[in-house]
Amino acid sequence: MSQIISEELIEDVKRFIEDNNRSSLMKLIDEMRAADVADLIEHLDQDERMFIFNLLDPEGAGEVLVEIEPPVQEGIISGLDDEAISEIVEELESDDAADLVGDLPEERAKGIIERVAEDVLEDLEKLLPHPADTAGGIMALEFVAVNAEATVQEAIETIREKREEVENVYSLFVVDNLGRLVGVVSLKDLVVEPPERKVSEIMNPEVISVSVDRDQEEVYHLVKKYNLVSIPVVDEHNRLVGRITHDDIIDVIEKETDEDISLMAGVVREEVAEESTVKISRARLPWLLVGLGGELIAAFVISRFESSLEKIIALSFFFPVIMAMGGSTGTQAATVVVRGLATGDITLVNIGKRLWREMRVAIFNGLILGVFLSLIVGFWLSDQRLGIVVGLSLIIIVLNAGFIGSAVPLALKRMNVDPAIAAGPFVTTSNDVLGLLIYLGLVSLFLHMGA
Amino acid sequence: MSQIISEELIEDVKRFIEDNNRSSLMKLIDEMRAADVADLIEHLDQDERMFIFNLLDPEGAGEVLVEIEPPVQEGIISGLDDEAISEIVEELESDDAADLVGDLPEERAKGIIERVAEDVLEDLEKLLPHPADTAGGIMALEFVAVNAEATVQEAIETIREKREEVENVYSLFVVDNLGRLVGVVSLKDLVVEPPERKVSEIMNPEVISVSVDRDQEEVYHLVKKYNLVSIPVVDEHNRLVGRITHDDIIDVIEKETDEDISLMAGVVREEVAEESTVKISRARLPWLLVGLGGELIAAFVISRFESSLEKIIALSFFFPVIMAMGGSTGTQAATVVVRGLATGDITLVNIGKRLWREMRVAIFNGLILGVFLSLIVGFWLSDQRLGIVVGLSLIIIVLNAGFIGSAVPLALKRMNVDPAIAAGPFVTTSNDVLGLLIYLGLVSLFLHMGA
Repeated sequence: MSQIISEELIEDVKRFIEDNNRSSLMKLIDEMRAADVADLIEHLDQDERMFIFNLLDPEGAGEVLVEIEPPVQEGIISGLDDEAISEIVEELESDDAADLVGDLPEERAKGIIERVAEDVLEDLEKLLPHPADTAGGIMALEFVAVNAEATVQEAIETIREKREEVENVYSLFVVDNLGRLVGVVSLKDLVVEPPERKVSEIMNPEVISVSVDRDQEEVYHLVKKYNLVSIPVVDEHNRLVGRITHDDIIDVIEKETDEDISLMAGVVREEVAEESTVKISRARLPWLLVGLGGELIAAFVISRFESSLEKIIALSFFFPVIMAMGGSTGTQAATVVVRGLATGDITLVNIGKRLWREMRVAIFNGLILGVFLSLIVGFWLSDQRLGIVVGLSLIIIVLNAGFIGSAVPLALKRMNVDPAIAAGPFVTTSNDVLGLLIYLGLVSLFLHMGA
Repeated sequence: MSQIISEELIEDVKRFIEDNNRSSLMKLIDEMRAADVADLIEHLDQDERMFIFNLLDPEGAGEVLVEIEPPVQEGIISGLDDEAISEIVEELESDDAADLVGDLPEERAKGIIERVAEDVLEDLEKLLPHPADTAGGIMALEFVAVNAEATVQEAIETIREKREEVENVYSLFVVDNLGRLVGVVSLKDLVVEPPERKVSEIMNPEVISVSVDRDQEEVYHLVKKYNLVSIPVVDEHNRLVGRITHDDIIDVIEKETDEDISLMAGVVREEVAEESTVKISRARLPWLLVGLGGELIAAFVISRFESSLEKIIALSFFFPVIMAMGGSTGTQAATVVVRGLATGDITLVNIGKRLWREMRVAIFNGLILGVFLSLIVGFWLSDQRLGIVVGLSLIIIVLNAGFIGSAVPLALKRMNVDPAIAAGPFVTTSNDVLGLLIYLGLVSLFLHMGA
C-alpha cells in the first residue's frame, strides 16, 4: 500500500524535471504521501530537490520537509528565502516548527521569528528555551485538555473545536482549575460514556506524566515500560504544558541508538544521508587518530620488549590473537551493559551482582581460550612451558578486559557520561595496550627466569 | 509518577518474604503497577520471585508476567504447573498469549493448549502458525472493525460492545461485506461526527496496511515512515486479520537493534537479564573462538614473513596500528550502512552512489593517516623510505577496509542475510588477516628490492 521509491520512479522524475514538465510532476506528487515525496527528494540532486520543493504549497512543503533527513533538509532550507521558510513554519506542528527554527543558524532563525504570525511566535517562545534532548525539547503544544468538572458532552465539544489544530487525539488530559494535571481519559472511554457524566468520574487519576526538564531517554523508558501512546508533560507545579506522542518516541529511540552505536564505532552521529566527504571525514577521522595515537603507544610498549622479541621472534605472531581476544571480550561485556542501560533494562541498582556475573563469564571463557591457546603455542613453538605462559597471560587479559568492559560503562553512567564510549575506540585501544603489556611482560619475565 | 525500584524497596520486600508477611506484601504490590511489580521481581531470587508471583490472581499475574524479561519469565513459568499457566494464558491479550505458549517447550505447550477455553484456543490456533518475526507473529486479534455501511452511531455501539475485550482503541478499521479492509476512521473523527453519518463517508480510504507474512522490520519501517499509531494486518485477499500497535513496534525496534548490536559485538542476542554463566558463555564463546581461529591465521601469515621480521624486528611494532586502522575504518563504514539499512534510511536503490561516497571518505582518511604514519615510522626507524612503504600500505589497507565495510553489508542485505554480521567478529578478523598480509607483503617486497 505504500509507495516504494524505485529506480524507475526516480528516472521518470528526473526526466520530468529536465523537460520542465511541471504538470506531470505535480500530478505524480499529488498522488504521493508526504513521507514518500520526502524519500523521493532524498534520492535526487540539489537542483532537482529545489525544483520539486518549489512546486509544493507551504502546507505540503512543511509536511514533506519534516520527513526529510537532516543533511538534505539543511540543503533545501539554505535554498529557500526567509519568507518561504516562515510560511512553512506557520503550517507546521509546534514541535516541528521549534525543531526547524532551533536548528537554523542564529541569524536566519531571527529572520524567521520576526516574520511568523503572533500565535506561532508564542509557541516558539514556549518551546525554543528547552534543550533538544529533554521532554520539553520534544513535546508539542497541540493536545486536548478539559477541566475535571466538565461533562463528557463538553469534552467532546472541546475535541470538536480543536479538531483542526490537534491532528491526533488518543486521550484527553484532565486538569484542575489551576491547570494542574489530575487525570486522563482515553478516547475509547469518552466515546462510550453517557454525555452527561462528569469527566472526573470516568478519568484515570493515576496518570503517568513527565517533567519538562527530564532527559528524553527517561521519557522513552516510561513510555515503553507503561505502553503509553502519549505522555503529558508537566512543569514544576504539575501544570500541563505539552504532550509527547508515540511517533516522537520512535525518533528518540533511533536518535539515542544512533548516538550509542556511533560512539561504539567511532562515527559521532554522522547522518546516514550526509553526502559531503569532508563532513563525513570530520566525523570519523578524530576516532581514527585517537586509535592511531593509542596504537603507537602499543608500538612503544612492544619496542620496550625488543630483546625478548629478538630471542623468540615468534612472540610477535600472537599479537593479533592477544589483541583480538582482549578486544572482543571487552566489547562483548561493554555492549551488553551499554545496551541494557540504554533500554533501561539495566539500572544502577545491584551493580555488584552485574559485575560478578560478568567476571564469572570472563573466568569461564578465559580458561577455555587460555587452555586452547597454550596447547597451540606449545605445539607450534615446541615449547610447552612457553605455551603455558602465553595461555596464562591470555586468561589474565580476558579477565581484565571483562572487568573493564563491564565496570567502565557502569562507572560512566553513574558520572552521567554516556556509557557508550566504553565500547568505543578509546577503551578498545587502551585494552590493546594493556593486553600487549600483560602478554609481553609475563612472557619476558618467564624468559628471564628461564635464562 | 512512576514507581522506582530502589534498594530500600527491595530490602523491604525481601524482609516481608522472609517473615512470611503476606498481608504487608499484598498491600505493597496492590499499590504498584504491573510493570513495576515485574521490575521488582527481576531484582529478586527465584524463590522470592515465586513467593510474590503466587500472591497474584491470574489476571494480575498475566499483566506482570508479560512485562518480565524472557530469562526470568522462563524461570517463573517453570515453577508453575500447567493449570496455573492456562489460567494466566486465558487472561492475556491474544498476542501475548501466543508469544507465551509459542516460547514453551513443545510438551508444556500441548498441556496448556488442551486446558484453555475454546475461544482462547481459537485465537492461539490463528496466531501460533505465524513465524515470530513477521507481522502475523506480532499482531493481536483484538481490534474494532465495522462495515463501511454502518453509521457512526453503530460504530460507537461496536466499540461499546468490545470495550472490555480491546484495551486500546485508536482507530476503527472499516471493512466491506467480505471482510476486506477498505478504510480507517480515527476515534477523534468518530467522536465529532453526527451519529447518523455513514462510516464510509468519513473514513480515509487510503489506509496503510501490512500483509501478514511481511517481516517485522518492514512493519517498523511503515509505522515510522507514516507515523502510525496502529497498523491493520491483512491476509493475501486483503481481509483484515489483526492489528499491530505502537507498543509492539517499540518491542520490534528493540529486538531488531539488539540483534544487530549483538551480531556486531559477537553476543548472539544474549538476554540482558540472563543469569546463568554457562548460557551467557554459550552465547559469547563461539564468537571468541571464531576470532581465535581467525587470528591464528593472522599468526600464520606473520610467521611466513619471519625473515623480514628478523631483518627489521621493528616491523612488528606496527602490527597494532595496522590492525586497528583497518579494523576501525571497516567498522565505521559497516556500522553506518548496517544501521541505515536497519532504520530503513538506506535502501538498495543507488548502491553505487553509497559505495562511491564511502570510497571518497576512505581515500581522504587513508591519505591523512598514511602520511602521518609514514612520517612517524620514518623518524622512529630513521629510514624515510621504509616509512613511505609502511604509510603506503596503510593507505591501501584503509581503502580495502572501507570497501569491504560498505560493500559486504549491502551484498548480504541483497542476499537476504542479516547485514549486521558485516560489522561483527568474522569480517573484522578477515580484515586483520588481510591488513597484515598487505602490510608485510609490501614491506617485504621493498626489503627484497632494497637487498
